[in-house]
Amino acid sequence: MLAHRLIERKRDGGRIEPGEWRAVALAYAKGHVPDYQMAALLMACFLRGLDRAETAALTDAMLLSGDRLELGHLARPRVDKHSTGGVGDKVSLVLAPLVASLGVVVPMMSGRSLGHTGGTLDKLESIPGFRTDLSLADARAQLERIGCVMIGQTPEIAPADRKMYALRDATATVESIPLIAASIMSKKLAEDLTGLVLDLKRGSGSFLPELERVLQLAEVMIKLGADRGCPCVALVTAMDRPLGRACGNALELEEAIAALKNEGPPDLMEVTYALGTEMLLLAGTAADAADARRQLQRSIETGRAAERFQQIIEGQGGNPAVVDDPALLPQAAECEIFSAPRRGFVARVEPKTIGRGIVEMGGGRTRVEDVADPTVGFVITARPGDWVESGEPIATIFARDRAGITSGRQALRSALLIADEADPALPLISHRVTGAGVEAYAN
Amino acid sequence: MLAHRLIERKRDGGRIEPGEWRAVALAYAKGHVPDYQMAALLMACFLRGLDRAETAALTDAMLLSGDRLELGHLARPRVDKHSTGGVGDKVSLVLAPLVASLGVVVPMMSGRSLGHTGGTLDKLESIPGFRTDLSLADARAQLERIGCVMIGQTPEIAPADRKMYALRDATATVESIPLIAASIMSKKLAEDLTGLVLDLKRGSGSFLPELERVLQLAEVMIKLGADRGCPCVALVTAMDRPLGRACGNALELEEAIAALKNEGPPDLMEVTYALGTEMLLLAGTAADAADARRQLQRSIETGRAAERFQQIIEGQGGNPAVVDDPALLPQAAECEIFSAPRRGFVARVEPKTIGRGIVEMGGGRTRVEDVADPTVGFVITARPGDWVESGEPIATIFARDRAGITSGRQALRSALLIADEADPALPLISHRVTGAGVEAYAN
Repeated sequence: MLAHRLIERKRDGGRIEPGEWRAVALAYAKGHVPDYQMAALLMACFLRGLDRAETAALTDAMLLSGDRLELGHLARPRVDKHSTGGVGDKVSLVLAPLVASLGVVVPMMSGRSLGHTGGTLDKLESIPGFRTDLSLADARAQLERIGCVMIGQTPEIAPADRKMYALRDATATVESIPLIAASIMSKKLAEDLTGLVLDLKRGSGSFLPELERVLQLAEVMIKLGADRGCPCVALVTAMDRPLGRACGNALELEEAIAALKNEGPPDLMEVTYALGTEMLLLAGTAADAADARRQLQRSIETGRAAERFQQIIEGQGGNPAVVDDPALLPQAAECEIFSAPRRGFVARVEPKTIGRGIVEMGGGRTRVEDVADPTVGFVITARPGDWVESGEPIATIFARDRAGITSGRQALRSALLIADEADPALPLISHRVTGAGVEAYAN
Repeated sequence: MLAHRLIERKRDGGRIEPGEWRAVALAYAKGHVPDYQMAALLMACFLRGLDRAETAALTDAMLLSGDRLELGHLARPRVDKHSTGGVGDKVSLVLAPLVASLGVVVPMMSGRSLGHTGGTLDKLESIPGFRTDLSLADARAQLERIGCVMIGQTPEIAPADRKMYALRDATATVESIPLIAASIMSKKLAEDLTGLVLDLKRGSGSFLPELERVLQLAEVMIKLGADRGCPCVALVTAMDRPLGRACGNALELEEAIAALKNEGPPDLMEVTYALGTEMLLLAGTAADAADARRQLQRSIETGRAAERFQQIIEGQGGNPAVVDDPALLPQAAECEIFSAPRRGFVARVEPKTIGRGIVEMGGGRTRVEDVADPTVGFVITARPGDWVESGEPIATIFARDRAGITSGRQALRSALLIADEADPALPLISHRVTGAGVEAYAN
């Protein structure tokens, strides 16, 4: 009867108290509240909203539905990065080993691709043998040894959130600021962090395209973290075009390896350094932003970051030789150059269309249980604002068969708009948000 | 993907097209759309509303998800009555045999008790042997023979509504005018009626307490019926107190038998005659309201109505001797007189508290699969406005054990308010609504 009463109250615009959130989250995690009641409650929450206190209570309720990583004994700063997700966003793959190579513990729990956005776990699993399903005990042991794990949300971590997130995806209740904030923060707080950096995407390829809502989300999450002993800093970054050139699991992993060797595309390097700088500042291991950036660049230049990635791969059962020889990654059976259909400016590279194209080609998921093909995707060399000649190669399509090539070609045709004029793209990093407020980001 | 798209659109305040309603209702009836997606869609419908065209489309979609009774060959008027439900509302038990005894076919499909309201099926099943689960073929045969069946919604009738109604009950999405209207009308249109009388309850014991919303519901349902060849008339009746004296399954059946013998309480007789008059007028078998009422009274006085009830009971496997000897109905193990705790006016007899008290005593359901005890309940002789002396018997409690008596006593203590002054109760029948509009009812 509890769930029914809470649905009714939220439906009518009322508040749900902390003890009630705790009870209903726990009951849901244990299967005592059926999915259909939780779906109705989530839709009522989506449409009626949650105030700050309710958002905090839901976060705590989901956190307390499971275990925490408990890393206090490590006596080192523990900082993670969370991105709200997009297309071509392989920053985590570079950032986690990079920051870990500088003495900061990075207990990174990521998600899978869903909808048009990619997922760090799927990208990692394109490495032959790589396991993302470590137990909490194994994850803890690896953190002690190497200072970094890159795993999925284990069954012990925030099980209420785990179930609720899957349900929200199936019931069109994802794009709600309090629900997003509570979901992310319950997982991140379970990592026992001393700091968290948020990469909040805006633009057409993001879950929350409008800047105003992104800043609201930042504010809610930063407050949630601050009140729970986990200081947070957020950067607002552009997702009106893919990040970097590669889109697709193995292709993105290859690009991340290039970045670890100082050969990544400029936008990927810049976002990685910017987020890494915030991580080192939160960790207290850099004197200032300039010092942080120097440390990060040096770790890449000396090969320490790449070496740390090899250790992580080895620790999680994968073949570390992929870092030296990316050709060991699974390769697409077919590939084809895509050329500019006319001369002009590249006016749009629409990330949602690219992401959906990859799903269409078998590289993503429309349901949780789908298996993503690691090999398929695109490498898009044209950037918004570039001038291209008719017939000039601007992308490569990677597919498992000719049908995939055809489907990929269609996706690129609608994603890549070439016109006489190009509207200005969003700045790569536009805002920095801290507990003190919002400031323009100094690129 | 269809369900997800529709949830998303309705969530954002958009419209769902007729073809989409048909597809999603059918897919849900067949189990291809899971309960959790339908729950999210229903909550979005509850909070965003459905316009007239959508309500009509949903009605048709649920109707077309199953079979119809197909009674055209009977060449007689076919009229049913539907009540939005309340406490002590045993009108159907009197009205169906009464109107059938006057040559009108009454193919009555009713529901079970749920929440604080009673259900006709549970009342009928207090008759030893009575079966409410006839097949459509058996129902059709009995209608040809006796002109009346009193059954539940068969699996063939509006299966999408059947599943959706149970889901709405569990997800707090019942009290929505378009959802109520579509649910009732999809079932009633499946009865292949030539006319339908609606008994719309208002007051604290009703699902829609406010008159304004009841009149909206009336208008929506009357329009739905009119557009589909089923003229409807609605009466708005009082549910700020129980109807009649008996509340509880077997107790109500006994009171209905008394009414069929012209010995029912005045309010029950009056509502029965008023609704019966509308039924005969819609059937075209009475010259005017006065003629209709004369026919109804005569059928009761001559015993023809009671005899028809016996035929129905016999047709559906029950023991028809209960009509002559109601002592054959199951009897409560314990009973106790309840006396007025003070002198004064009976200011309130709160139906919701009475209904919940019966559930508490085991006579109702909190879940669909619960079994209702037919014997428990109340006979409340005090009416709002009555003057009572301290210690004067005003009710009797029927229970299965002493704990039930205690629980029943508590329910009556909070349901029956005795005060120095009594607010006026709602008029028993206040409005009559037809396709032409709303008029005050001439009592």
